[in-house]
Amino acid sequence: MSVTAAQGFTAAGIAAGIKAPFVSGNGGNPDLALVVNNGPRLAAAGVFTSNRVKAAPVVWSEQVLKGGTVSAVVLNSGGANACTGPLGFQDTHATAERAAEVLGLNAGEVAIASTGLIGLRLPMDKLLPGIDRAAAELTEHGGEKAAIAIKTTDSVHKTAQVTVGGTRPGDGGGWTVGGMAKGAGMLAPGLATMLVVLTTDADVPAAELDTALRAATRTTFDRVDSDGCMSTNDTVLLLASGASGVVPDTAEFAEAVRAVCDDLARQLIGDAEGASKDIRIEVVGAASEDDAVEVGRSIARNNLLKCAIHGEDPNWGRVLSAIGTTSAVFEPDQLNVAINDIWVCKNGSVGEDRDLVDMRYREVRITADLAAGTESAVIWANDLTADYVHENSAYSS
Amino acid sequence: MSVTAAQGFTAAGIAAGIKAPFVSGNGGNPDLALVVNNGPRLAAAGVFTSNRVKAAPVVWSEQVLKGGTVSAVVLNSGGANACTGPLGFQDTHATAERAAEVLGLNAGEVAIASTGLIGLRLPMDKLLPGIDRAAAELTEHGGEKAAIAIKTTDSVHKTAQVTVGGTRPGDGGGWTVGGMAKGAGMLAPGLATMLVVLTTDADVPAAELDTALRAATRTTFDRVDSDGCMSTNDTVLLLASGASGVVPDTAEFAEAVRAVCDDLARQLIGDAEGASKDIRIEVVGAASEDDAVEVGRSIARNNLLKCAIHGEDPNWGRVLSAIGTTSAVFEPDQLNVAINDIWVCKNGSVGEDRDLVDMRYREVRITADLAAGTESAVIWANDLTADYVHENSAYSS
Repeated sequence: MSVTAAQGFTAAGIAAGIKAPFVSGNGGNPDLALVVNNGPRLAAAGVFTSNRVKAAPVVWSEQVLKGGTVSAVVLNSGGANACTGPLGFQDTHATAERAAEVLGLNAGEVAIASTGLIGLRLPMDKLLPGIDRAAAELTEHGGEKAAIAIKTTDSVHKTAQVTVGGTRPGDGGGWTVGGMAKGAGMLAPGLATMLVVLTTDADVPAAELDTALRAATRTTFDRVDSDGCMSTNDTVLLLASGASGVVPDTAEFAEAVRAVCDDLARQLIGDAEGASKDIRIEVVGAASEDDAVEVGRSIARNNLLKCAIHGEDPNWGRVLSAIGTTSAVFEPDQLNVAINDIWVCKNGSVGEDRDLVDMRYREVRITADLAAGTESAVIWANDLTADYVHENSAYSS
Repeated sequence: MSVTAAQGFTAAGIAAGIKAPFVSGNGGNPDLALVVNNGPRLAAAGVFTSNRVKAAPVVWSEQVLKGGTVSAVVLNSGGANACTGPLGFQDTHATAERAAEVLGLNAGEVAIASTGLIGLRLPMDKLLPGIDRAAAELTEHGGEKAAIAIKTTDSVHKTAQVTVGGTRPGDGGGWTVGGMAKGAGMLAPGLATMLVVLTTDADVPAAELDTALRAATRTTFDRVDSDGCMSTNDTVLLLASGASGVVPDTAEFAEAVRAVCDDLARQLIGDAEGASKDIRIEVVGAASEDDAVEVGRSIARNNLLKCAIHGEDPNWGRVLSAIGTTSAVFEPDQLNVAINDIWVCKNGSVGEDRDLVDMRYREVRITADLAAGTESAVIWANDLTADYVHENSAYSS
């Protein structure tokens, strides 16, 4: 599993003392991860936040990825290094330089990702020595530790893997896509507050990685909308080592990347801050996919509906009120809404008995039929809970 | 105060049994209001929700207002009559017909407004007899009772008044604009979940009322964004009786209407469901007013920031992250943010000490300086609290 499921990668996760005062001896909370591509290929692609306020590591890594080559990734939790000015950017630069030095690489091929509080400088006196220690602990089995080190308020670490053409990684003819993710709050499209590193031992050039990654994120991470908030640090990287020696079928590879992204995206929703429900919003009968996505997001972001779902109240009126704020093609008196497969709203008015809706389980399915075409889209969201309020009203204090 | 502050209006508020089982003798909860314009002028203007899913009374009243004449308004709480199909529209029509019959008016000049749960038919067997009783109780002092009858989860009723050119209503040469409002949750622009009726005894034709009302709502009710949710029922009406005999100065009249709207809008924010803070977001240094409003709304709707404000945490990183999602003109490294007058973010990075920010009081002021021009706008919002979640997760059950 994780970033070392595919051949050609080593990883490590350590407690560098970024997150909390470093206690010599026990090591503190893991907060620094290192992922190294040992080749033979060093191809890479990346997708980053569309927030215009970008953290220093995002600005740095976007430049690195333009070259299509990444030999190592340094990730830290405990601080986002966002809104930290020119000095924050120098910190990111120094991080890449230190990793390059200790690993014998080119700093221009070292991607950086950070997560945590905005507006605080990173403790470089902890982070730089941490890189040395992480480099010394790199192994082909370090993927789990790396996944643990990037957690913030995540309750569990998240990894996923797809192997094609072999029963296990390393089989003749087989290749693997594996990965890790973190992300708990500030989950919204474009992307969620997430750091994701995917690796593959398939032999795929950077341009094809880029195509596969963009297609995959568009329908997975970009359609996760836990709380409508978009982060300054979102980063999704895909690194290819070519170590399997297999050049995969393009479509098969793209599907494997999509499947791993989908798996990780679902894990992010399932572990969102304070959430008690995972809400699968499927918009059908749309005139265009854009319409379906716009309507899905509007439903996903409606606080009143999110509260109602929390209260296990099939309040379809709030679904209609959210649809009504969009510019999608529809007629109000032709809208149909199902909650957990009960069509509680038909033709814009009362449908089946709302008391038939069973909302006891964590997953809640809302289907909105716009009756305007044949396009559809799925958006995942969470409910709004008192726990979410508590967790996020005390986050920085 | 209220809708009977101006001369020429009578009003009533009664318990018709719409809201809860009617208990003979004690009267139950007030839920039906009647406002009548006794002239001599019957001019009117209206502004309605921009939600495309409109309640039946909104569809009806929009037609009535096209004539520029309103002789009476029937308002009910206890049911929104939204998403109720053709039968729901017939209920609205029957309501106007009954009011017209009992008051000797034309039904096409009777506006209707409803508020409460979406998706339920109104109990017409309670509502229609209630109109007869309300009509029998109409008085020149009925404004308070009317304001009380339109409450839903409002903790207090809301009224406001401006008198110009006289020390009290009825003075020679003076004229008055008064009004009432309800609105507690689903408060967002375009408009908030609000029913508002304003009255004036100034002698103003419908076209001028319309101009004054649109100008006033654009910078008051339309800039109240308590929870990002837009209702199906929002209605703001302005009725002129001309009973003062005074033709006011156009600008002076527009300013009086704006002042009453502003007063009521602030009362709505101050009584929003579950809120513990009123957040005044002022965006300055914008290249255009549209930019300022877009940025203000993005900040107002950021759930993570709303939680932080609830926790009295001056988390300016969440302000920047919200600004970064907009298309407004700005450079990230030139943004400045003050919270309660402490410039905690300067040039997109750390500014004054966040510990200097005192957030103990209900009103919190966020100033976002885009450093891109001279335009500005103020948006009012509320914090996100566990009480909001509780109130809205149990609303219909």
